Amino acid sequence: MPSYLARIYVTPKPGVVDPQGLSILGGLRSLGYHSVSAVRAGRYLEVQLGEASSQEAAESRTTEMCRQLLANPVIEDYRFEVVEGD
Amino acid sequence: MPSYLARIYVTPKPGVVDPQGLSILGGLRSLGYHSVSAVRAGRYLEVQLGEASSQEAAESRTTEMCRQLLANPVIEDYRFEVVEGD
Repeated sequence: MPSYLARIYVTPKPGVVDPQGLSILGGLRSLGYHSVSAVRAGRYLEVQLGEASSQEAAESRTTEMCRQLLANPVIEDYRFEVVEGD
Repeated sequence: MPSYLARIYVTPKPGVVDPQGLSILGGLRSLGYHSVSAVRAGRYLEVQLGEASSQEAAESRTTEMCRQLLANPVIEDYRFEVVEGD
């Protein structure tokens, strides 16, 4: 069976306060980047899923993982891509 | 002038210990995902760059920001894509 890698992007939902993003925005402005108007800070995860019977099975497993552990559905959105390979 | 958005991915360099990734790996395994072999945890940032004279100018500004504030070059790699739009 082929192995799969999931690249997962977790971001704060629109409207949710994002203190880390605000802090980075302040840092950029204090460095002189005055044209920057907003920063949203999220997480990027690479998960080596191991073997799966198909692309669909690997994607379905990734969705489960996001729901159970990797993202907080109350305040975060997630999206991912699953590719074959280690 | 058009406005640009940068999507920035910051990841631990290969070989650098990644405690957050290890912690997530442990969590996934304890939930029964025994086939997962590795997790790398990084950051995902969306930066509204504001106006720039060209795509190249926006990309050059993003590289500067990454070097100055957004990534720690000793232990992290970064990559980004810059797209037109708010």
